[in-house]
Amino acid sequence: MALVKLIEYADAGPEVRAVYDDIMKTRNVDWINNFWKAIANDPKTLKRTWESVKEVMTPGALDARTKELIYLAVSVTNNCEYCIVSHMAGARKAGATDAMLAELMAVVGMANETNRLVNGWRVEVDEKLQKAARGG
Amino acid sequence: MALVKLIEYADAGPEVRAVYDDIMKTRNVDWINNFWKAIANDPKTLKRTWESVKEVMTPGALDARTKELIYLAVSVTNNCEYCIVSHMAGARKAGATDAMLAELMAVVGMANETNRLVNGWRVEVDEKLQKAARGG
Amino acid sequence: MALVKLIEYADAGPEVRAVYDDIMKTRNVDWINNFWKAIANDPKTLKRTWESVKEVMTPGALDARTKELIYLAVSVTNNCEYCIVSHMAGARKAGATDAMLAELMAVVGMANETNRLVNGWRVEVDEKLQKAARGG
Amino acid sequence: MALVKLIEYADAGPEVRAVYDDIMKTRNVDWINNFWKAIANDPKTLKRTWESVKEVMTPGALDARTKELIYLAVSVTNNCEYCIVSHMAGARKAGATDAMLAELMAVVGMANETNRLVNGWRVEVDEKLQKAARGG
Amino acid sequence: MALVKLIEYADAGPEVRAVYDDIMKTRNVDWINNFWKAIANDPKTLKRTWESVKEVMTPGALDARTKELIYLAVSVTNNCEYCIVSHMAGARKAGATDAMLAELMAVVGMANETNRLVNGWRVEVDEKLQKAARGG
Amino acid sequence: MALVKLIEYADAGPEVRAVYDDIMKTRNVDWINNFWKAIANDPKTLKRTWESVKEVMTPGALDARTKELIYLAVSVTNNCEYCIVSHMAGARKAGATDAMLAELMAVVGMANETNRLVNGWRVEVDEKLQKAARGG
Repeated sequence: MALVKLIEYADAGPEVRAVYDDIMKTRNVDWINNFWKAIANDPKTLKRTWESVKEVMTPGALDARTKELIYLAVSVTNNCEYCIVSHMAGARKAGATDAMLAELMAVVGMANETNRLVNGWRVEVDEKLQKAARGG
Repeated sequence: MALVKLIEYADAGPEVRAVYDDIMKTRNVDWINNFWKAIANDPKTLKRTWESVKEVMTPGALDARTKELIYLAVSVTNNCEYCIVSHMAGARKAGATDAMLAELMAVVGMANETNRLVNGWRVEVDEKLQKAARGG
Repeated sequence: MALVKLIEYADAGPEVRAVYDDIMKTRNVDWINNFWKAIANDPKTLKRTWESVKEVMTPGALDARTKELIYLAVSVTNNCEYCIVSHMAGARKAGATDAMLAELMAVVGMANETNRLVNGWRVEVDEKLQKAARGG
Repeated sequence: MALVKLIEYADAGPEVRAVYDDIMKTRNVDWINNFWKAIANDPKTLKRTWESVKEVMTPGALDARTKELIYLAVSVTNNCEYCIVSHMAGARKAGATDAMLAELMAVVGMANETNRLVNGWRVEVDEKLQKAARGG
Repeated sequence: MALVKLIEYADAGPEVRAVYDDIMKTRNVDWINNFWKAIANDPKTLKRTWESVKEVMTPGALDARTKELIYLAVSVTNNCEYCIVSHMAGARKAGATDAMLAELMAVVGMANETNRLVNGWRVEVDEKLQKAARGG
Repeated sequence: MALVKLIEYADAGPEVRAVYDDIMKTRNVDWINNFWKAIANDPKTLKRTWESVKEVMTPGALDARTKELIYLAVSVTNNCEYCIVSHMAGARKAGATDAMLAELMAVVGMANETNRLVNGWRVEVDEKLQKAARGG
C-alpha cells in the first residue's frame, strides 16, 4: 500500500484534473496510472513533473522508442520496480519487441559490469577518447 | 594513475595479443584503449569481457547506436567517468549527434528523478501496466 | 519473511535486553521494531548500531526533525523500503507535516536528476564554489 | 575538461540569456556557475531545469537551509562531486555552520549503513510503522 | 510475477537444455532456479551468462566461499533481493556460518557508511596508500 | 583539495590525539591517513567511526583479509576512489595477491551484471533458495 492516498479523478480539484486530462489526451488513454495519483497530493509537483516528462519524452532527435528504452535502462540500473514495469510497457507501446528488450537487458547488465572493472582499477581516460567524446 | 600497470601490445603474451588483434580488427582501429590494457593483467577476464562485449554490442534487434546510448545512460546513472567518455565517443562514432546526446541526458535525468518519487511514496504497480509490460 | 529469526524480548539474553530497554526508554515507546529484532542475532552489531544511531540522531546543531528528513532523503535515494517507512514515521513523530514530506520528495527527485546532468557532461567545479563550500 | 563547451553570457542567444538573467536576479549574484553553462547547449533543458530548481528550492513548508541540506545528503550518497561542492556552498549561504554540516555527514553515513543492514536481512516493515508513516 | 515467462526444462529447446544440464551437473543439483529460467528466453544471454558465472565463480586464488561472500556483499549494497537470497544460500552451501554472515553484514554496512564520509568531504588519496594499493 | 582542513597530530586536541594514538598502535603504523584527519574536525564522529571500524574489522569468524576484500567489493560497487585505494592497500597488507584482487574484480563485475538481469525481469525468489538462505 502506498504511503499516500491515491487521488482519483472524481476526488481531484481543478488543477489536478487539468493535468489528468492532459495526460489522457497526450497519451490517448482513458485512465490515469498510480504514479500520477500518488504525486497529485502535491499539485505543484504533479504539474511540474508531468510537463517535464511530456517535454522530455516527446520525439525529437531521438524517437519515442529509443527514449523509452533509455528510461528503462536507468530504471533497471536503479532497481525501481514501478518504473521498470511502466517503461517496459511504454517501450512495447512504442514498438519494442521481445528481442529488443532482451538485448537491452544484456547491454544494461554488461554496462553495469564494466563500470565496476573500470572503477576498481581506476583506469585513466585516454586522450583520444576524450577528444572523440567531445566530437573533436 | 591506474592501480595496475597497463599492458602494452609490445609487452603482451600471445593470449593477450590475440584479443588485442580481435579488438582492433572488429572495431577497425589501430590502437587499444586503456580499459583493455588494464584488465589484460588477468588474461581470462580480458578474453571473457571482450567476447561478451562483442556479442552484446553487435547490432541485432537494436542497432549499434541505440546500444551505445543505452550503455551511456547506465554509465551516467552510475557516474563512471571512463565509461561515460568512452561510450559517448562510441555513440558519436555510431552516428549520435549533439542533439541526440542532449536528449539522452534529459531522459536520464528525468528517469533518475521519477525513480525516486516512486520509491519515496512506495507506489504500487498498476495491474494494467504489469500486463502491458509482459506484452499481454 | 526476513532471512533471520526476529529475536523477541522474551527470548533475548541480558545483553540484548539491555539494548532493547534503552531503545524503549530513549524513544519513550513500549515496543521494539523489526530492525532491531533482526540484527539482535548479532548482539555486538545490535549494541554498536544502537549506540551509533542514538549518538547521531540526538538533537545537536541540527534538530531531530531535520535529521529524520536527511535520513529519509538518503533512504529514498537508495530505495530502502524499510528505512523509508520507518524514517517517514520518525519524521512525522518529530513534527514533519504532509507538506514538508512532499517538498522533501521534490528536492530528492530534483537532486537525483541534476546529479546525472552534471555527471553526464563532466562539469568542472567552479573555484568560487569550492571556496564557498569550504567556508572561505 | 567538460564534455561540452561552456556557454558564456557573451556568446549566448536571447533564450539562454533570459535564463541566466533570472538565475542571477533570483540568487542575487553576478555570475553563472558552470552547471548552467554546460546544460545551456540545450536551451530547453536549461530553461526547464532552472524553472524546476527554482520552484523546488523556494522556501515553503521547508526553509531554504533544510532544502539545501537535503540536496547535499542526496549528492553525498550519489558521490556527485560538483553537486556536493555547490550545495555545500548553498547550505552555508543559507546559514549552515560547520557543526551542522558535520552532523549531516554523520546522519548520511549512518543511513547508508543501516539501509544495508535492513536490505541484507530482508527485514519486513512493521505494521505500526507503516501506519505511522502514512500519518494514521 | 516475473515480466517474462519462466522456461521450464520440458519446454526448452536443445540450446537451453544443454545449459540447464551443465548447470545441474556443475552444481550437483537436480533443479534449475528461476534466474536461469527467466533469462532463457534469450538463449544467447543464458549461455554467455552461465559460462561467465561458471568461469568467475570457480575456485582459484580465492576459494568458493570467499567468492560467494563477495557476491553477497555487492548484492546487499545494490539491494537486489533475488541475488541476496541466492548468494546467501550459495555462501552457506560453501560453508558460511551464521557468524560469518553476521560479520559480512557488519562490514558491508560500515563500508557503505565510510564511503559517504569520504565522498562528502572529498578526502584526497594519500600517496602512501596509492603506492601500497599498487603493491609498491 | 578536501572540503575541510586536515587535522594534523601536532594541531590536535587530546580527544583527537587519543584516537590517533590508538589507530597507530592498533595498526602498527607511525602515520595517520587523510580520512581520519578529515573527520577529526568532528571529534565525536572520529571516535565513533574509529571504534566501529576497529570492532568490525577485527578478525573473528572471518579473517582480516576476507573482511578487507568485502570492504573493497562494496567500495568498487559504489565507486569510492579513496576507499578503493585504501582497502586495496589493506587487502594487500593482509596478504591479498594480484591474482586474488583480479578475481575479486571479476566477481564484483559479474554480480553487478546479474543484479540487473534479475532486477530487469523481476525474477521471483525460489522457495528452495529462500529456505537455504535461512539455513533451513
